[in-house]
Formats: sequence, structure tokens, C-alpha cells
Amino acid sequence: MICVLAGGVGAARLLNGLKDVLPAEEITAIVNTGDDVIMHGLYICPDLDTVTYTLAGVNNTETGWGLKGETWLAMESLKKLGGETWFNLGDRDLATHLYRTGRLSEGAGLKEVTAEITSSMGIGVNLLPMTENRVETMVTLLESENEVSFQEYFVKYRHDVAISSVRFNGSKEAKATPGVIDVINKAEIVIIAPSNPLVSIAPIFSVPEISKAIKARKKDTVAVSPIVAGAAIKGPADRLLNELGHEASVEGVAKYYQDWISALVIDNADFERAKGIESLGINCVVTETVMADSQIAASLGSTLLGLKR
Amino acid sequence: MICVLAGGVGAARLLNGLKDVLPAEEITAIVNTGDDVIMHGLYICPDLDTVTYTLAGVNNTETGWGLKGETWLAMESLKKLGGETWFNLGDRDLATHLYRTGRLSEGAGLKEVTAEITSSMGIGVNLLPMTENRVETMVTLLESENEVSFQEYFVKYRHDVAISSVRFNGSKEAKATPGVIDVINKAEIVIIAPSNPLVSIAPIFSVPEISKAIKARKKDTVAVSPIVAGAAIKGPADRLLNELGHEASVEGVAKYYQDWISALVIDNADFERAKGIESLGINCVVTETVMADSQIAASLGSTLLGLKR
Repeated sequence: MICVLAGGVGAARLLNGLKDVLPAEEITAIVNTGDDVIMHGLYICPDLDTVTYTLAGVNNTETGWGLKGETWLAMESLKKLGGETWFNLGDRDLATHLYRTGRLSEGAGLKEVTAEITSSMGIGVNLLPMTENRVETMVTLLESENEVSFQEYFVKYRHDVAISSVRFNGSKEAKATPGVIDVINKAEIVIIAPSNPLVSIAPIFSVPEISKAIKARKKDTVAVSPIVAGAAIKGPADRLLNELGHEASVEGVAKYYQDWISALVIDNADFERAKGIESLGINCVVTETVMADSQIAASLGSTLLGLKR
Repeated sequence: MICVLAGGVGAARLLNGLKDVLPAEEITAIVNTGDDVIMHGLYICPDLDTVTYTLAGVNNTETGWGLKGETWLAMESLKKLGGETWFNLGDRDLATHLYRTGRLSEGAGLKEVTAEITSSMGIGVNLLPMTENRVETMVTLLESENEVSFQEYFVKYRHDVAISSVRFNGSKEAKATPGVIDVINKAEIVIIAPSNPLVSIAPIFSVPEISKAIKARKKDTVAVSPIVAGAAIKGPADRLLNELGHEASVEGVAKYYQDWISALVIDNADFERAKGIESLGINCVVTETVMADSQIAASLGSTLLGLKR
């Protein structure tokens, strides 16, 4: 069994690659829920949904989120009513949030609801929300000094604004979802997906017992750098690293993760930086990491599995 | 200014008829909220929405509820997820519930949210939810003795099952929505729409201060019988009257309302029963009440306005 710490799109691609080289049932992903947002009374889990939809093969590749072939009639009508529509929800996508919200209001836990949704969608990979408590990734905007939710920063402001800090509201009191610590303890390898370190993986680490459990598995924990040649494949990871005092490079990623990992996978484009990584006491694996197609993703999956002790 | 106590479809038609014979702004409808239901975390007000959509001319005449030209993609997807879909919500209709739920969660009152929705939809008639507290119309099924919400009885069981009692959970503590008592006190005439007496109008009366205020206006209060020739125009009013020990006739309606009204409008089909009504001390007006088209509705509206002192 292997364990993957996951954010959204990058993690979903990696999980698809891993699924091509070992049975889906042997993979458990611990998914960030710091981005979760309650909109219009609906409980929305963007990272869980991105991973779910991608693994089910029904993700919208044009938008990079949501379902393919989606329609937008509910949002069009909501706009006419003067409602907030910056967080766009497709008609079919709404069903996921309706289902989740209904089940949660009946008293089901997020783990149980996630299992129901992934099972309905025929996904073999086991998805565990990092916590069933509410942890909220909050971002302080540099100029206005306003603190906003991650989705406001990411979607409403299209991450087109500098930030000065990030915090994870509620994380100190949060417990790992039942099963999470056990999976970390027992996994043959723990893989940190190429997700944004500061706002996709850091929320997972912000749950104290998860951070501690991963540290105890440091020798078996490997991260895939989301930074390639100084830039993020997708999203604002590079800018956030800079804005929050890190280096937007594979070395910056290595330093950020050095308490938790013993190996970092970097892209061929950064091969000259391998020595710098190794000088930090972190094994460096150089390979193709930009998962432009399923073959590259599967190849990266194989490389990662090859790192099992 | 006139005041109308309203349930769903029958009330909506009457309000349209009244709107044709006096300015919409002079009409205030106090609308039943006992049928309100929380589904999938969304706050749904079936009677408010039926009246709103009908007055806006966007109601679905095929289904008798919801919006015309509706699509059902969210519900189709929810069904695939194994979610509850017996309470069918169209994609565009969902927007109304998303808007309402979002605004309520922000702390707005149901009166305020209703005003926002009706204003967006260009409705001049003033709609007041009977209360901003939660009053739930609960129905006990005769055979199983299970108590279910009104929507479960009405939609899930398609009111195709006998009931033994109705109660209005929370009504004793409920307060009238601000403005409701003032409207009742000041209206030139109070009209009880041809809605189901036991489950559309009774919930309104179940709020103590509303019942008391209407009784104080008894001389100026007139009901339109929803029973014509012993049958309901729509829905289970006739069966419910029988099941709960009343008579499914205009006399039964008159007796049920006699504490609150001084006049009852009955259909031409029941002209022979006028004397029976009058023997109860209730003025009886005989006219065409089945609002098959807008002309009949307007004519009924004129007749009602003619009853003003």
C-alpha cells in the first residue's frame, strides 16, 4: 500500500499515473481540505472533487476544474437573482455538493461521504480527507491587508494579487481523519504529490498528528517538485514561494520539505540542481515530471515506486 | 391595500387575478411557510416560490411547480450519486434555493430574502412569509402511524396515502414576520385564497398572533372555497377534509373557517348550498371560482374587491 499527500490537479495526474502501474486499491490519497468552502449553504471540497473527477475520467480539461460537458443554468439564474457567482458551479457539479451537504447534515462524516461519492463514480483509489474538522486556509492580501479564504484569493481574485501570509485556521485543534495516521504508518512509501507546497500540502502538515506521523516516516517519504525550472506547472506556487520568503526553485522546495522527506524528484530541466539538493542531505531523483500525457504520468509513477525500500 | 392569505397554486392564480384589477403594489400576500423544507442543505420554500414564479409568469404549467423550460441535469447527476431525488429540483430553480440559503446563512431574514428574489423577478405584489421562525407542517400517516414532513407526504408519497392528523411544529412559539400584523390590521379586505384549508391556510393560523389578528378583522375577511362540488380543484384538500373529520364541501369549508370569516365565495356549481352557508351566519357569494384562465381570475378578483366595506 502506498500513501500520497494530495492537492488538486497535479496530484490527480500523479494518482492516475500510479494507478496505471499498480492496483488502484493499493493507493490511498490523503487530500487537502483547507480549500473547502461553504457557498450558498453547500459544502464544497475543490481538491477532493478535482481528484475524484480526474480519476473517474470525467474532469473538465478545458477549465481545469469541474466536470466535462458541463452546463451552467443554475449559475446563470443565480446571477439574475443577484447572487454571488464568482465561484462557478456547473449544473452536474452541483449534484456532488448537494449530495455531500445533504449527507453531512444527516450526520455522516466527510470520510464516509467521500467514500460514497468515489464509489458511485467507480474510483478504486481510496481518498481520505486530511481531517473531518474544519481547517480553513486563510490568505492575507499584501496591499489591502485583508484576510480572505483561499478560494476568494484563488478564484475570485484569480490569484492575481500578492499575499503576505497564509494560516490554517482551526488546524491546531484538528484531528486526522480516522485511518489517515494508520495509512501513513503502514505505507511502503509516502509520496508528496507535485501540489502547491504552501497552500495544498502545508494545510495537510498543519494537522499536528499528520505532520508528526510523516516526520516519523521521513526515510520513506519522497516529494515530487511542483516547481520546474523556477516556475509552477499550474497555479501560483512559484509566486507564493517568493512572496512568502522561499526560493521558487527545486532547492526552495527541498528546503521547505526537508523536515519531512528523504528524497525529492525533480524534472530533467533542473538536472544541474541535483547536487544542491543532495547537499541538503536529500536524495535527488531526476526524471521527466511534467505529466503532459498518461505515459509520462505512469513513468513517473514507476520511478516513484522504484524508490520503495 | 388588500391582504391575501396564500398557499401555492390556487393562491397564485387569485393573486394574478387581483393584480389585473388593482395595482400590484396594493396587494400583500401572507404566504404559508409550513411546507418549507431543507433538502441537501438548501432552504426551500415551495409556496413562496410557486407564488413568485406564477406572478413573474415563469411558472411551469406542465408540472404545476417550478420554472418553465427547466432542465434537470443536477438531479440526474444526484441520482447517479445515490442521492435523494424525490423532491425534484430543476437546474434554474436551484438558483432560487442557492440564493436564499446563501443569504439566510449570511444572517438575512426570510422577509428580506423574499423581497430580494421577488424584486429581481420584477414582481410588484408584496410577499410576506407568515413567519421567519421555523414552523413545520407534520403529517401522521394513518396506516404506518409515521409522522412525516408535509413535503414527504405531498411529493414523496404523492399524497396517495391516508393521514390521521396534522400538526404545526414550532408554531406556538412562532412570531408573525414583521409587517404581517400591520398589514392584517390595515387591509381594506382580508382574502383567504382558495388554498388547502388544513395544510396551506391552517399553518398561517397556527401562528397565534396571526390567528388573533384575523379574528379581529372577521367582518372584513372573506375566503374563497377551494372545494367545488365536493372536490378539490387541485391536490388533496377534499380527501384531507374527510380524513380529518370535516366535510369535503363548501359547508365543511365554511364551518372550518367560521371563527375567522364573515363571507365565503363559492362556485356556481354549489349555488344550491348558499343557504346552508348563510345559516352559519356567513355571507355567501356565488360566482365562477375555477380560475381556468386569466379572465376568470380577474373576474373573481373584481368580485372580491366588490366585497370591501
